[in-house]
Amino acid sequence: MAIYRYERDPKAIYRESFARIEAEAGATLAALPPGLARVAVRLIHACGMTDLVADLAASPDLVEAGRAALNRGAPILCDAAMVASGIMRRHLPAGGEIVAAIELPGVAARAAEIGNTRSAAAMELLGDRIEGSVVAIGNAPTALFRLLEMIELDGMRPAAILAFPVGFVGAAESKDALIAADLGIPYLTLRGRRGGSALAAAAVNALILPEGEVS
Amino acid sequence: MAIYRYERDPKAIYRESFARIEAEAGATLAALPPGLARVAVRLIHACGMTDLVADLAASPDLVEAGRAALNRGAPILCDAAMVASGIMRRHLPAGGEIVAAIELPGVAARAAEIGNTRSAAAMELLGDRIEGSVVAIGNAPTALFRLLEMIELDGMRPAAILAFPVGFVGAAESKDALIAADLGIPYLTLRGRRGGSALAAAAVNALILPEGEVS
Repeated sequence: MAIYRYERDPKAIYRESFARIEAEAGATLAALPPGLARVAVRLIHACGMTDLVADLAASPDLVEAGRAALNRGAPILCDAAMVASGIMRRHLPAGGEIVAAIELPGVAARAAEIGNTRSAAAMELLGDRIEGSVVAIGNAPTALFRLLEMIELDGMRPAAILAFPVGFVGAAESKDALIAADLGIPYLTLRGRRGGSALAAAAVNALILPEGEVS
Repeated sequence: MAIYRYERDPKAIYRESFARIEAEAGATLAALPPGLARVAVRLIHACGMTDLVADLAASPDLVEAGRAALNRGAPILCDAAMVASGIMRRHLPAGGEIVAAIELPGVAARAAEIGNTRSAAAMELLGDRIEGSVVAIGNAPTALFRLLEMIELDGMRPAAILAFPVGFVGAAESKDALIAADLGIPYLTLRGRRGGSALAAAAVNALILPEGEVS
């Protein structure tokens, strides 16, 4: 009946995907701490690009701190609806809230008020909810810049920052700023222009899934 | 007050993004038909990678047919929730329905029944709704393979196919199969492993937005 030959078993697809990633990127992955290497595998899996490992930057405590936050039900604050939509909600260990900041009421008005993007205004509207949260940015460089300002000027302390703004204006710069700021807050980011909601969601999912589970 | 210097004006961010894309990829973009080049710019904008132009493949009628379908309110059938979530709903010219196929009731049962993934089962459950629709695949190679089978075996005729499955098992193969099948159905795809929900959504958005509008 079917005219195409292709792998149809989800478990086999995952297994073969991870085997190919290991075969191609095993050497670079082995240079990472094991917990972070597993996160990197999920990121590679989400975008099909093994060379992203070279652009990853993370604080040494990222995986432990991120998992601990999610295990205590920390909210996951996403800049974009697509990031929120990609999170494997059913696997959340303690059912923490998932927020798409851009959808908060009042975002457009606040953006006009502060002369910044809606994404940056959305970070402001999150306010104290940022404290102890996992922040996942998959779209807007301005959201990451505004978050850094809130941390450095207002003393906000998220539990972890997963920073994957994407694009040509401010993406590389905002991620470099996160790394350079050396905030003492656990973070994971991808240097350069690459990023996006699928990577931000994959980073969250890598911290949500029990070690060794893939789907 | 702010400690970082960064562009905060959304219009300026868009303008500068597109100027940088033009500066870097203008020569390769100029080799595409103008309508398709504008779609390609949005794809580059969504992922930060100018080199994707080399991997694009499209039928000559894609832009016109895709726009015409959306203008008459054709449903947009997405494989994944993230794709659906990334579509600029407010700009839909005729308010067509957006469906995340994976969320249809009965997907898991159908997958078990047919011995295929949930993503492939979701295509089956769409059934006749595929006729005249715009199908946007941003995740699962098996969804694209199953769609090709439904077209070739069951005579389904979507109005356009935007095919961006991603990853290591079947992604490149399914997109090559779409190109090789030469179905006479307008399509856009990205050869190789790269793809994803952000690109699939960006392709839809490029067809939704009036020519020249960016956000």
